[in-house]
Amino acid sequence: MNRQSSDRPHVVIVGCGFGGLAATRALADVDVDVTVVDRENHHTFQPLLYQVATAGLNPSDIAQPIRHVIRKQDNARVLLDEVFDVDLDARTVRVTDGDIGYDYLIVATGATHSYFGNDDWAEFAPGLKTIDDALDVRRRILLAFERAEATTDPDERARQMTFVVVGAGPTGVELAGAVKEIATTTLRADFRTIDTTASRVVLLEAGPRVLPAFPDSLSASAEKQLTDVGVDVRTSTAVTGIDADGVATADGPIPSATVLWGAGVAASPLGRAVAADLDRAGRVPVTAELAVGGHPEVFVIGDLAASESGGVAVPGVAPAAIQGGEHAARCIEADLSGSARPTFVYEDKGSLATIGRSKAVADLSPRLRFGGLLAWLVWCFVHVWSLIGFRSKLRTMSTWVWQYLTGRRGARLITGTTHRRHPPSGSA
Amino acid sequence: MNRQSSDRPHVVIVGCGFGGLAATRALADVDVDVTVVDRENHHTFQPLLYQVATAGLNPSDIAQPIRHVIRKQDNARVLLDEVFDVDLDARTVRVTDGDIGYDYLIVATGATHSYFGNDDWAEFAPGLKTIDDALDVRRRILLAFERAEATTDPDERARQMTFVVVGAGPTGVELAGAVKEIATTTLRADFRTIDTTASRVVLLEAGPRVLPAFPDSLSASAEKQLTDVGVDVRTSTAVTGIDADGVATADGPIPSATVLWGAGVAASPLGRAVAADLDRAGRVPVTAELAVGGHPEVFVIGDLAASESGGVAVPGVAPAAIQGGEHAARCIEADLSGSARPTFVYEDKGSLATIGRSKAVADLSPRLRFGGLLAWLVWCFVHVWSLIGFRSKLRTMSTWVWQYLTGRRGARLITGTTHRRHPPSGSA
Repeated sequence: MNRQSSDRPHVVIVGCGFGGLAATRALADVDVDVTVVDRENHHTFQPLLYQVATAGLNPSDIAQPIRHVIRKQDNARVLLDEVFDVDLDARTVRVTDGDIGYDYLIVATGATHSYFGNDDWAEFAPGLKTIDDALDVRRRILLAFERAEATTDPDERARQMTFVVVGAGPTGVELAGAVKEIATTTLRADFRTIDTTASRVVLLEAGPRVLPAFPDSLSASAEKQLTDVGVDVRTSTAVTGIDADGVATADGPIPSATVLWGAGVAASPLGRAVAADLDRAGRVPVTAELAVGGHPEVFVIGDLAASESGGVAVPGVAPAAIQGGEHAARCIEADLSGSARPTFVYEDKGSLATIGRSKAVADLSPRLRFGGLLAWLVWCFVHVWSLIGFRSKLRTMSTWVWQYLTGRRGARLITGTTHRRHPPSGSA
Repeated sequence: MNRQSSDRPHVVIVGCGFGGLAATRALADVDVDVTVVDRENHHTFQPLLYQVATAGLNPSDIAQPIRHVIRKQDNARVLLDEVFDVDLDARTVRVTDGDIGYDYLIVATGATHSYFGNDDWAEFAPGLKTIDDALDVRRRILLAFERAEATTDPDERARQMTFVVVGAGPTGVELAGAVKEIATTTLRADFRTIDTTASRVVLLEAGPRVLPAFPDSLSASAEKQLTDVGVDVRTSTAVTGIDADGVATADGPIPSATVLWGAGVAASPLGRAVAADLDRAGRVPVTAELAVGGHPEVFVIGDLAASESGGVAVPGVAPAAIQGGEHAARCIEADLSGSARPTFVYEDKGSLATIGRSKAVADLSPRLRFGGLLAWLVWCFVHVWSLIGFRSKLRTMSTWVWQYLTGRRGARLITGTTHRRHPPSGSA
């Protein structure tokens, strides 16, 4: 079923994040039929998810319908579905209504949160991978302030006004900075009983420094910038438990109603369907061509792949996924023209992380490392530039300028029915 | 609990739609303490909900956090909670954590959908009263096209591409027109297997004409404009059943995967807490001052009130709710200054309904009735003008101009976890 009727090779791409979308686009002029399967109808610009979670941007500013993004690419079709299994011998993937055959398969399903074996933490400490995750986090943050305003119990009020972010990678740092900014600026005038500027934001990191993937000097800069805005940064502090009351650490408990997870990621479970042996993080070891050993027709790219370039492990970042997607397309093109496949070479374009208004760090090359306003401007520019579509760029840029000038955030809506409270017992 | 500590009269306003918000604002300079209780954190501009449901606008374009809207009004506080009961003798309202005392109570909880006793229809035919409703409807409409694209069964494809709107009041007419517009314009280039322009949109109305609250000539104009854009209008057609397969009517079944409810409304159940006798639609009969008989300290305004002005029933429209809220505030002000309460006089500002791009009807006065482009321009102007906040006005206007020029709709996201499909049986 669902196999296109032409005689051209059929490329199935599973997952339309940065890697899957790059592969799709790179196949536009190749003589193949492409089927993109994703369980969401939209491509999400994940680096800005934290801004949706903190009420700064609308979901549609950073997410575009996949079929709209590739509408002009005649050789590609889109299927909103989930791939549950792969049959490497039969060369088929299983979706809801049956099997889809492929000549080439590109698996780009990325990573999900990992709670290091503590799956019971997930309920109390949501991570940030999808638009739905971001809307859930937004609901939790905004509800905490509402409940702090409504309660008369000082302990409960303090607990509602304490936000704990676990993990000080880029997402954790960005979340912590943004939550602090909401509390001190955006919400300040809107509450009568509580002083939102007194909210506590605690950033917990098990390792010795924030932004562990960045050089030491920028970790130090980021930590100082976080402290300057009032975030309580606690490095070398392992989390030992998370429940409805808050977080337990080796240094004692932190009562908190809102815990956000920025710590572990684990590769998508689909890796198991294409490789018997995964690495410790659940990723699929791939060849120098990014293919699965023994199955040159199956590529794994992006966060799901354990790949190397020049003997160095390729990091799980958006540019690596994009380059991986383009590489897989080049390999397919080489096969069709009878030439040799190229070897994957990862080009490191540097790293950026932002802490908040005028605050960020940039690691563009060993000789170009800096923090502060300039890093923030670079961050803003790169992120607006990378968004898909002129209108998303324009809306996001205008939103940021407005937010910078007024301190307001335009998407402070609590949606989703789970916030409804229940009638008191004894009520009619 | 939660009672403010000053000696000023305490006004509790339940519900912050058009009526509750107008009452709150009108009390800004009156020597009272105001507590606004709403179960949502935002005021929603309901007339444009159908645009969120049809992917044209973002939720935050038409909804604003209540506490942000009234942040400068020092005598008002906001409580995100639900009122479950009212004790008229004790003068308290019951919320989740206890009771709140009042000196004046303004009940403005509006109306909800009514399925005329067929509550089992609700699951298959969602109505449109809240942002969450609109996101649910958006998900259903967009998913129907995805499923039509994915299926190979022609009957199922036809069923997925048939949209039925029940009820031809303004919401039903606007929804039908917008769904047709999405199918013929917005989605046209994005699908490979289906021809979205072949989608059927059926508008069912039990009465003899569309827009029954408008004069005959405009009903005829609206029906012609609907037919011109390709909507299948069926008046005098009663719905006898709605289930997962579609709609049953006296003229036979209509297989449809997406049924939208624009027909009945019923007053909020809170009416029962303040009055023993309700009218047939569940509304609270009120005095000429909009108060409950025997309880001059309790006002009921907006869609929940059965009120009269000059011997004529006041319609359940936004301007009536706004005028009712302002009137209740004036009555309280009169009480405090020892003067007589005014009698409520409803000022009819006319009615507007839109069918789509350049198509609408306007009933501004008996001598000023027209349809077509001019009516549509008036409709656009009035609705942008009425939105709260400069930024919402700007965003909405720019979105409409962009949509008019390109035919695109920027908020085509399927969110909410309910759209996830399940693994096929027999899958690993």
